[in-house]
Amino acid sequence: MERHFDQELAKLKEELLRMASLADAAVANALKALVQRDNALAEQVHVGDDVIDKLDVEIDDRAIKLLALRQPTASDLRFITMAMTISGELERIADQAVNIAHRALELNKEPLLKPLIDIPRMAETARGMIREALDAFVYNQPDRARAVINRDNDVDNINRQLHRELTSFMIEDPHTITRCLSLMSVAHNLERIADHATNIAEEVIYICEGRDIRHQPTTP
Amino acid sequence: MERHFDQELAKLKEELLRMASLADAAVANALKALVQRDNALAEQVHVGDDVIDKLDVEIDDRAIKLLALRQPTASDLRFITMAMTISGELERIADQAVNIAHRALELNKEPLLKPLIDIPRMAETARGMIREALDAFVYNQPDRARAVINRDNDVDNINRQLHRELTSFMIEDPHTITRCLSLMSVAHNLERIADHATNIAEEVIYICEGRDIRHQPTTP
Repeated sequence: MERHFDQELAKLKEELLRMASLADAAVANALKALVQRDNALAEQVHVGDDVIDKLDVEIDDRAIKLLALRQPTASDLRFITMAMTISGELERIADQAVNIAHRALELNKEPLLKPLIDIPRMAETARGMIREALDAFVYNQPDRARAVINRDNDVDNINRQLHRELTSFMIEDPHTITRCLSLMSVAHNLERIADHATNIAEEVIYICEGRDIRHQPTTP
Repeated sequence: MERHFDQELAKLKEELLRMASLADAAVANALKALVQRDNALAEQVHVGDDVIDKLDVEIDDRAIKLLALRQPTASDLRFITMAMTISGELERIADQAVNIAHRALELNKEPLLKPLIDIPRMAETARGMIREALDAFVYNQPDRARAVINRDNDVDNINRQLHRELTSFMIEDPHTITRCLSLMSVAHNLERIADHATNIAEEVIYICEGRDIRHQPTTP
């Protein structure tokens, strides 16, 4: 019986990792659609979101069933409730990727404003945060999760800097306004992806240490 | 024993309602700070957020303890896991109120761009959605929750319309760009508040009917 329960937990973890990998791929493809001006790829991100939505519902169902049938305690209980939270965060990450893909379709209709440098950099950092948060989860490494939380500031800083730069662009040349707004929107979506990765990292620390670190200042 | 468990569930519900009322008040005050150009009130919203953050952690702790000690089944189990989700949504609503308060402080430094009409209207709709979602929860009324979900489109439409209007403002007069960006940001925060209210409504339907309606098209 115990053995079977372990298998069910392993299955839950596996589905969560599959969802994480799909969410990360959605972000990567949305960015590629933007940078390479590839409309077909942008459409794919939109279509692929259904699979991620279904996985979110499946993981929640599986978790609720495990809670009801197995009545787990202590660390297993925490693991299962947090799996539900993590799948919710991954689903929101994928939604942000869809938003980026929409903006890519808009931007691809107009001439390139300028070569994109900061946005791909933000995307790389945010994707790294997702992967690290999930690795911290798989290997039970709270220190790795802590490193993710500290990187959130980097993304916020690039976003603020880009926001200032794009505002100057708009003031200098009002013809660029709609394109600048779309790029600001993409940067904002990436900032939210980093926030969701941070939320996952906080959950991992909670699973590992049974300690809620939300709403506390982070150490530098 | 059963009686005591009922009291614990009632206590959980009570804390959730207290949190909802604080989150709603935060949104109301942030808007008032913006419309009446009241910096002191904007600061209050920021300070008050700590109380809401603490309640979020308390509710999660209480829920996890109930799951561990009482090992509830069926509807009680769903109620407890969803209480955790709802408190997370309320916490995010309060965070958006803090963002609005920050923008109010920025906007109050500059002359009024134009009388605010659409933004207060969005805020009223979004606040109504929060209250209705919580009432639907208290009185177990899935139909009321469904009405909340349908109103989300209204908020999205006002936001889109305002975005277009502010973009025209910026193009006509680049001096208004920073103020228009701040107002767009406020509108975006309100749109996200309405999204969180929608998420709560979806949870309520799930609690009432044991059926996951996320990621499904809504009926008009």
